[in-house]
Amino acid sequence: MGDQKLTGRVTIPTDIDVVPETLELMKRWGADAIRDCDGTDYPEGLKDVAAKVYSTYYTTRKDNEWAKANPDEIQQCYIMTKFYTAESDKLSIHLMTGIYPEMLKVNSHDDIRRWWEVIDRTTGEVVSCDNWSYSEETGDVTIDPATPFHDYTVSFLAYIMWDPVHMYNAVVNDWKDVEHQITFDVRQPKTHKFSMERLRKFCKANPHVNVIRYTTFFHQFTLVFDELAREKYVDWYGYSASVSPYILDQFEKEVGYKFRPEYIIDQGYFNNQYRIPSKEFKDFQAFQRREVAKLAKEMVDITHEEGKEAMMFLGDHWIGTEPFMDEFKTIGLDALVGSVGNGSTLRLISDVEGVKYREGRFLPYFFPDTFHEGGDPVKEAKENWVTARRAILRKPIDRIGYGGYLKLACEFPEFIDYIESVCDEFRLLYENAKGTTPYCVKTVAVLNSWGKMRSWGCHMVHHALYQKQNYSYAGVIEALSGAPYDVKFISFDDIRANADILNDIDVIINVGDGDTAHTGGYEWEDPQIVEAIQKFVYNGGGFIGVGEPTGHQHQGRYIQLGNVIGVEKETGFTLNYDKYNWENHPDHFILEDCTKDVDFGEGKKSMFAREDTEILVQRDKEVQMAVHEFGKGRSVYISGLPYSFENARILHRSVMYSCHDEANLRKWYSENFNVDVHAYVANGKYCVVNNTYEPQDTVVYRGDGSSFELHLDANEIKWYEI
Amino acid sequence: MGDQKLTGRVTIPTDIDVVPETLELMKRWGADAIRDCDGTDYPEGLKDVAAKVYSTYYTTRKDNEWAKANPDEIQQCYIMTKFYTAESDKLSIHLMTGIYPEMLKVNSHDDIRRWWEVIDRTTGEVVSCDNWSYSEETGDVTIDPATPFHDYTVSFLAYIMWDPVHMYNAVVNDWKDVEHQITFDVRQPKTHKFSMERLRKFCKANPHVNVIRYTTFFHQFTLVFDELAREKYVDWYGYSASVSPYILDQFEKEVGYKFRPEYIIDQGYFNNQYRIPSKEFKDFQAFQRREVAKLAKEMVDITHEEGKEAMMFLGDHWIGTEPFMDEFKTIGLDALVGSVGNGSTLRLISDVEGVKYREGRFLPYFFPDTFHEGGDPVKEAKENWVTARRAILRKPIDRIGYGGYLKLACEFPEFIDYIESVCDEFRLLYENAKGTTPYCVKTVAVLNSWGKMRSWGCHMVHHALYQKQNYSYAGVIEALSGAPYDVKFISFDDIRANADILNDIDVIINVGDGDTAHTGGYEWEDPQIVEAIQKFVYNGGGFIGVGEPTGHQHQGRYIQLGNVIGVEKETGFTLNYDKYNWENHPDHFILEDCTKDVDFGEGKKSMFAREDTEILVQRDKEVQMAVHEFGKGRSVYISGLPYSFENARILHRSVMYSCHDEANLRKWYSENFNVDVHAYVANGKYCVVNNTYEPQDTVVYRGDGSSFELHLDANEIKWYEI
Repeated sequence: MGDQKLTGRVTIPTDIDVVPETLELMKRWGADAIRDCDGTDYPEGLKDVAAKVYSTYYTTRKDNEWAKANPDEIQQCYIMTKFYTAESDKLSIHLMTGIYPEMLKVNSHDDIRRWWEVIDRTTGEVVSCDNWSYSEETGDVTIDPATPFHDYTVSFLAYIMWDPVHMYNAVVNDWKDVEHQITFDVRQPKTHKFSMERLRKFCKANPHVNVIRYTTFFHQFTLVFDELAREKYVDWYGYSASVSPYILDQFEKEVGYKFRPEYIIDQGYFNNQYRIPSKEFKDFQAFQRREVAKLAKEMVDITHEEGKEAMMFLGDHWIGTEPFMDEFKTIGLDALVGSVGNGSTLRLISDVEGVKYREGRFLPYFFPDTFHEGGDPVKEAKENWVTARRAILRKPIDRIGYGGYLKLACEFPEFIDYIESVCDEFRLLYENAKGTTPYCVKTVAVLNSWGKMRSWGCHMVHHALYQKQNYSYAGVIEALSGAPYDVKFISFDDIRANADILNDIDVIINVGDGDTAHTGGYEWEDPQIVEAIQKFVYNGGGFIGVGEPTGHQHQGRYIQLGNVIGVEKETGFTLNYDKYNWENHPDHFILEDCTKDVDFGEGKKSMFAREDTEILVQRDKEVQMAVHEFGKGRSVYISGLPYSFENARILHRSVMYSCHDEANLRKWYSENFNVDVHAYVANGKYCVVNNTYEPQDTVVYRGDGSSFELHLDANEIKWYEI
Repeated sequence: MGDQKLTGRVTIPTDIDVVPETLELMKRWGADAIRDCDGTDYPEGLKDVAAKVYSTYYTTRKDNEWAKANPDEIQQCYIMTKFYTAESDKLSIHLMTGIYPEMLKVNSHDDIRRWWEVIDRTTGEVVSCDNWSYSEETGDVTIDPATPFHDYTVSFLAYIMWDPVHMYNAVVNDWKDVEHQITFDVRQPKTHKFSMERLRKFCKANPHVNVIRYTTFFHQFTLVFDELAREKYVDWYGYSASVSPYILDQFEKEVGYKFRPEYIIDQGYFNNQYRIPSKEFKDFQAFQRREVAKLAKEMVDITHEEGKEAMMFLGDHWIGTEPFMDEFKTIGLDALVGSVGNGSTLRLISDVEGVKYREGRFLPYFFPDTFHEGGDPVKEAKENWVTARRAILRKPIDRIGYGGYLKLACEFPEFIDYIESVCDEFRLLYENAKGTTPYCVKTVAVLNSWGKMRSWGCHMVHHALYQKQNYSYAGVIEALSGAPYDVKFISFDDIRANADILNDIDVIINVGDGDTAHTGGYEWEDPQIVEAIQKFVYNGGGFIGVGEPTGHQHQGRYIQLGNVIGVEKETGFTLNYDKYNWENHPDHFILEDCTKDVDFGEGKKSMFAREDTEILVQRDKEVQMAVHEFGKGRSVYISGLPYSFENARILHRSVMYSCHDEANLRKWYSENFNVDVHAYVANGKYCVVNNTYEPQDTVVYRGDGSSFELHLDANEIKWYEI
């Protein structure tokens, strides 16, 4: 174990009223960077401190004067009204119904006949522009003639008159009389020029700043508020606020086909990540990635010219940067920073390539919601750290950091002590793990319609927020974030382009509901895909299907890979077939460590098994878990797997079972599933880590299968030489 | 109340060893007809009895000599193998795998290249006949070349070498050494001629027989057994055993397009009633109806010429007769008889037009499974009678009957007593209700893809048998069978043909899972349908949707009539939309009589409500019941409604609410939902009936709204003059 005291790799917030505390904490936590935050000011007295200074920078707001002088270059978004039924042959639709009036403003400045679309949703047909009109006075689109009792929607462009994040902060913190920050569009010509000058000015005016922390570049993820200023629509991956006629004109020229608002509107689903992406939306994303990267690079170049580093915050206006795609590397960023909510969001940062270092912003934020009398910030910090540590041990971030009002934190000495230990623990593990890939038992690929673009973020709607309809699936990704695998995210397009990518993969995971992008839906009608995956399993590959894997009604089956997976969904179409296979096999290898009935989360109704399938768990004649042989390979079906240490073990055993490698289970392995073992063979180190808040006893297996008993304190991590 | 003792309208079974008991029972039960049964003989001593004598008659079996002499005219069925994956470029599929070998025999006598089909189920394409061959020796179809890792099926014709019902009886009763009865095909030329002569001979040889009870005509519903002689596939509505090249040649000529086995095979789903019927299958059914009626009429004519009545058993070989369709009336039958399992199956018989009288065969059958020491046949009889009585009071059958071994029943004097009271009760209610339509509060139409052809039988897989996936929907039909409505079953085709049929309807019910024939699936992409239903509700009609009504993913919605119903299913596509409407309204009119939490059966997951929808019940943020206004009409959404008296009341209140007629709820009405009130205004009678096995107290409301308190004994029915 290391003896010398390591320092650095830690960022802390500061403010004008905590200069001595900042200096004290720099020492105790070994911090080597200081940042400002929303609502804080950087103290004069720390401008010459021996640490890097970060400064947040907003490219698209905080200059209403410019925005107001250039209203045509205010950012825009596509909005679709709800469905209105024509009660006669004339129908008027008020566009702003359901939208916070101060947030958006209808854009009737650009040619509405080109950029808007009125759709008869009963037929799916576009209503001719001759048959509708817009009144500036009433704010209504009137369809005349309409077909009685058909349903209509209007897709239109709106200016973003109040930056959604600024509005969110104002509403949540009950700010009064704050001027609404208008979002201007750096990608448009006047604002482009202005923004580059503005950035250069800022750099020159702030010589003490070492790192420009971009929050972020140009386009906010989709976030719209309703009349009551409540969140109405949110998509952390949404592209519908990255549009403007100026941009779309370019897009149209590049792709060579006519743009339709429906490419963005997508029936009101806005191409969210549950949707199997259309060709047009994939084209649009590719276009945005290239354009955003190009423009971001201009800013990064200026940053560098001014002698500063460029750091990107993975949030707010991050749309189009797509850190897992190739264009991202061309931006030339020095660093990436993001909020860490769990293991998946940690790896959303740590797995990104093309930057020199990655920083995780940990919880709790030093805000009064946690740091008040009676609050327990240590508990929150522990939960956050232990949850993220699983993932850090697989793929470390390079730095950790905190945000908020330092003054508040200083009032909790136990918290200060605990974070000191976290900083030390982090630096030690970074030292031990750095530059190596931890030992990977298997290469596991998550297969969906998005592939690497949604690495670690698939099943996320609004960052790491819970959704009843997806926690049973997101749990698989969370388990993977700390599991001893080389994890890949591949798409159906990847397989179509080159099925040989499967050669390096041990296990394919397909997780989600049928007819969503997560499982693939109609992608399974493509014989190329079926051939590739069936061949992969037949030749010995493992397949783990969770939820409704490969689910799509087609040619006599709902579960398209029925011959591989060995289960089918009863949709009513097969009620006439008698089903005799209902025997449970609770003693199966996969279930050997279970301490209780398996928690399948929401589970699935109506799944049944083929006769040659081995059911592990059925409840009330609905199969929740089953295994099936196919050629030399195996499939494991699970109806849902919310994240827990016990379920992570079930997934691990499923992986080992699916590729016929049960014999090698006990290598770099802990008998107790609350404890993980990670080996950094190239560095000659391994660690044993207790993921719980209680002491744990376990048997630890080394890579050669030899073992020893071990007791660990709550949360403890122990390092060993190999 | 009637004083004189009514007699008749009752059929009893007999046997050679129970002549005095038969005579005694005829008197006590007032029976006026005697029947033979499977495994009984008609006694010589009763040939001159003063009662009608029924004789079962099997048109398609019980003459193996003929069948063996004419193997080309043995009945046939279409079979599809399961899905086989090609592991190389050659794939052999053994046709008889999974099928009881003595039941079916591959028909390679007819041109297999014309009548079989090998399908690549990965692409959906038919494999050219040049690329597959069949070996008589191995019984295998070999596909060469096959595409590796594609899945294939073979559709082929097989002769029915053991009549499925005969086999079922033999297996269930463990008959040893019984010769398998082969099913011959009366529709083919030689057997046609032979069968008419055979029938005439039978008539002449049995002058004591008054009624030929056909069991039934020509085609068995689909029933196939597996290698272990277990039921493998059953569809009481299945047409796949009504085929032969001879018949299909005629079909092809009639419709003018080429026949494909896939029209019958339907991807292995065999056009079961969950499938939205294809044009080709509808054509085929229409062809069968006409041809079956024509041929059945020949037999009925002979029956009449021989001075006997013709009665059809609604079961076994009933396929093609379709008693709810127009062709049925042309057969000229005197009577219809069927087994009564519940209210729905009662009305499956009693609502049929085109016969002089209808008879229900009640349970229990006089078989040792019930009539043994310790058995409780009275309990079974009570349950059966009380369950069916609800429906009889809405639409009476004309006769009731029993079957089995009379000797067994005679050993249970309490049973004999109870049935005596049932017979009396039946005759009285028949007398009071006859010739009138009971008072109908509303006209209610069940809308699905099958319409009147599946009247009362929609949601039935194997007659009245329970299915976990549909009892929550079948419960609605069962409730309707005893409810005070004029009930219609209409199809999307009916609306397309003439939307004015909706003018006579108060409430439309759409019940089932999405993308099934019960709710309509892609039928909702037809603007004609949407226009008609939205107009209907807008103008004041009621709409009750149960399960996933109008469910089909299309143009931005899963619930196609979302603007009417006010709910949507979360498929993942709308997770980005915030949902704030979760308030329950437990005091709603519809729920006023509830004694406990509503039982939605299987319920539905992931349903949410629009903002303008009033939620009656949501559980764990999944809407189970909600109401929504649309124009002058209203919609009621219910996630599932298994049959119970309490749920029947919920449905009734939903009907009244949906058409804004809450004010008239208390007319011909019982405050206690265990008690029904039925009025036969034209006959000046009404009755109050206790549907339970316990005494009940209630308040009875007359048609003018006046009321009185009433106590009823268990099961009691009380008749009053209006």
